[in-house]
Amino acid sequence: MALNASLPMPHALDTLVQSLRRLPGVGVRSAQRMAFHLLQHDREGARVLARALEGAVAQVRHCAQCHTFTESEICATCADPRRDASKLCVVETPADQAALERTSAFQGRYFVLMGRLSPLDGIGPHDIGVHELIERAADGVVQEVILATNFTAEGEATAHVIGQALRSRGLTVTRLARGVPAGSELEYVDLGTIAHALVDRR
Amino acid sequence: MALNASLPMPHALDTLVQSLRRLPGVGVRSAQRMAFHLLQHDREGARVLARALEGAVAQVRHCAQCHTFTESEICATCADPRRDASKLCVVETPADQAALERTSAFQGRYFVLMGRLSPLDGIGPHDIGVHELIERAADGVVQEVILATNFTAEGEATAHVIGQALRSRGLTVTRLARGVPAGSELEYVDLGTIAHALVDRR
Repeated sequence: MALNASLPMPHALDTLVQSLRRLPGVGVRSAQRMAFHLLQHDREGARVLARALEGAVAQVRHCAQCHTFTESEICATCADPRRDASKLCVVETPADQAALERTSAFQGRYFVLMGRLSPLDGIGPHDIGVHELIERAADGVVQEVILATNFTAEGEATAHVIGQALRSRGLTVTRLARGVPAGSELEYVDLGTIAHALVDRR
Repeated sequence: MALNASLPMPHALDTLVQSLRRLPGVGVRSAQRMAFHLLQHDREGARVLARALEGAVAQVRHCAQCHTFTESEICATCADPRRDASKLCVVETPADQAALERTSAFQGRYFVLMGRLSPLDGIGPHDIGVHELIERAADGVVQEVILATNFTAEGEATAHVIGQALRSRGLTVTRLARGVPAGSELEYVDLGTIAHALVDRR
C-alpha cells in the first residue's frame, strides 16, 4: 500500500506561498511561515495587504520631474516653491533621499535614479534615466549637480558615469565628501576611509 | 525658511509598507525594500500576490476532522480510506505533518493543533482544539494517540497536557522517541540528548 510521500498542499495556499516568494529576501520557508501566520492568525491582515498592494499599484507612479514615487504628476518636493532650483542632488533611491532630508542640510531639488548602474544585472544608463537627468540639469536654472549616490562600487561607478556626462556639457558637478563618520574613533575606522579623509583634509 | 525634516511618502506607498509589516519577521526597512522592489521592478508580482492573498483567504479553511488547511470540508489525508484510522498522530503545524509524511513511516491519521500551548502569548487549550482532539480520540476507532509535538519547551508542555487528558480517559498515548539523530557523532551531540538516549536505550 503506497501512500504519497509528500503532503498535498491546498492549491490556494500553494499559490500564496509561491506569490510571497516574489518578495525580495523571502525564501520558501519564510513564505510558508508568512502564509501560515496570515491564514491562522491574521486573515484581516491578508485582506488589508491585498488591498494595499492593489492600491499602491494603481496609484503610485513616478514624479515627472525627479522620478521618485508619488501619487500626483509632480511630487511634493518638486512642487515646493521654497526649494532652491539651482541645486540638484542625485540619489539612488527614495530612501536615500529621505536620509538626506532628515539632515535638513539640503534645501535644493532632487533627481532620484530609482536604481544604480549595474551591468551584471542588465541595468544601464537608460534604466536609471541618465538622459532625463542631463536634460533637467541643462535647463539653465540648475547651477550645481551634487552626486549623492552610495559609496559602494556600483554607486561610485554610477557617479563617475553621470559626472563625466554632465561635466562634458560644462555643468558644475560635486560629490558628497568622503571621510571619518561623526562620533567614530579612528582606531575602528577602515583604512580606505582614513586614506580618503587624509587626501580630502581641509 | 523651514522645510520639512522628513520626506512625505505617498499615502498608498505608506499604506503598503505598513501592511507588509504585518507579515511575521518583516520590520520597517524590509517592508520598505519589498514595497520599493514591487513598485519599481515587479508590479505584476504585486498584482499576483494581491490575488493570491484574496484567493487564500476566501478558499482555505480548516479540515473538519484534523484541523489542517484545506479547500474542502475534509482534507485529502483524512479522506483517504487507505489510512489507518486506529492510529492518530498529533502535530503542531502542517509543516510538521509534512515532515512526518516525507518519512513514509506513518500511515495513520493526523490531528493538527495549528499551534502549541503558550500561556505567555495567551494561547490556551481552547485555541489548539484540545477538546475536539479528545472527542476525536475517544471515538472508539482510535487505538493509539502518538504525540509528535516539537521537542521544545512549549511543545513538551503541550504534549504533557494533552497526554494527561487522554490517559485519564483510558487511551493509549505514546510520544516520539528522543535520542541521537541519525548520522551524528556522539562527540557533537548535546548532553541532554545523550542522557535521554541512555535512559530510553533498547
